[in-house]
Amino acid sequence: MDQKLLEQIVSQVVAALPELNQAAKTEQGIPVGVSNRHIHLSAEHIEVLFGSGYTLTKEKDLKQINEFAAKETVTLVGPKGVMRNVRVLGPVRKFTQVEISRTDGFSLGVVPPLRDSGNIQGSPGIVVAGPKGAITLKEGVICAARHIHMEENDARRFNVADGDRVTVQVGGPRGGTYCNVLIRVSPNFRLEFHIDTDEANAAELRNGDKVTLVSVGEN
Amino acid sequence: MDQKLLEQIVSQVVAALPELNQAAKTEQGIPVGVSNRHIHLSAEHIEVLFGSGYTLTKEKDLKQINEFAAKETVTLVGPKGVMRNVRVLGPVRKFTQVEISRTDGFSLGVVPPLRDSGNIQGSPGIVVAGPKGAITLKEGVICAARHIHMEENDARRFNVADGDRVTVQVGGPRGGTYCNVLIRVSPNFRLEFHIDTDEANAAELRNGDKVTLVSVGEN
Repeated sequence: MDQKLLEQIVSQVVAALPELNQAAKTEQGIPVGVSNRHIHLSAEHIEVLFGSGYTLTKEKDLKQINEFAAKETVTLVGPKGVMRNVRVLGPVRKFTQVEISRTDGFSLGVVPPLRDSGNIQGSPGIVVAGPKGAITLKEGVICAARHIHMEENDARRFNVADGDRVTVQVGGPRGGTYCNVLIRVSPNFRLEFHIDTDEANAAELRNGDKVTLVSVGEN
Repeated sequence: MDQKLLEQIVSQVVAALPELNQAAKTEQGIPVGVSNRHIHLSAEHIEVLFGSGYTLTKEKDLKQINEFAAKETVTLVGPKGVMRNVRVLGPVRKFTQVEISRTDGFSLGVVPPLRDSGNIQGSPGIVVAGPKGAITLKEGVICAARHIHMEENDARRFNVADGDRVTVQVGGPRGGTYCNVLIRVSPNFRLEFHIDTDEANAAELRNGDKVTLVSVGEN
């Protein structure tokens, strides 16, 4: 290849770099999923709240495979307040878990600990009422720690592993970084950064907005 | 001074450095002030809401000189909801201004723009009710942009000027950084990082917690 052609090719590649970088960055963008207050129910509790032999009815699929928003809702009754129309998410779980924001906690009069989903030991309880009955949870009310769902392909692309904590960057006038974001990897997961309504409102984030993974490690 | 003494002194200074750095960092800490929903009222509007010739009664001084929480509260009436017991802050202002969080906005059915205090042009209005009457604001409902109050001494210490935008770091499990924080310098101001309840709850911040100024410039 002669020197002139070589120089032409190199200069074209260099000229294209900003676009290539931008394209790479966009591809690295992680869509936001905002979690409003909701409840996961055990089979036993579904029967108490909705009646013997009752099963959940799907309202719509969620982005994560097999997970869905049910048509059913419950009422949370705390010492300071009541929240109606709290969505039940399916499928059935082994243990009932209530996920609320810190703001919801103030309204209800409950102080939920910040926890990864499934880790409910020692968390406060609450009264949950349905059309056919009520349950008094001894524990299970948490404020879900932010996390990113992804499948193995994404984990390789981002160079992270299940259980890692990462830092994520948010743009815009209320932008900044979120540290200590848990990575969760599974074949059933699809790329999504889950935050609660407080975190969404504080940063002006909405469903489908994109954030960027900027570093791996706890802060 | 002989070489040995010199070396001893230097090694002692070096040994003390981590503590000195830590002390400097602590001194740079900026205390958080969480702003719950509130209203600033014009003299004219105070008379409509509370009666002819009425003046506000101080409940308690705020950290910023001359500013106070009044005993008086109002009710905000939006298209989707009502909020009672919204605190009036004094002293009287030239224009009435309502500061609510994005979460409050969803409850009320109002979408306030993110604005620096005083900049209310084109913002939505709302109905404000008091014990003696109600006003229908044409504009004045904002979501206050986070900012740091400080006096000139602090501005010199942090090497910032009135109107600068800075980035602030928050520790803890829900820590991270807040970009685009407005610096406001005045002799009447005392060092305080003002955030709304969404921002406080998203980062688990409370009144008096400390944050660190990490860089100057817009993001």
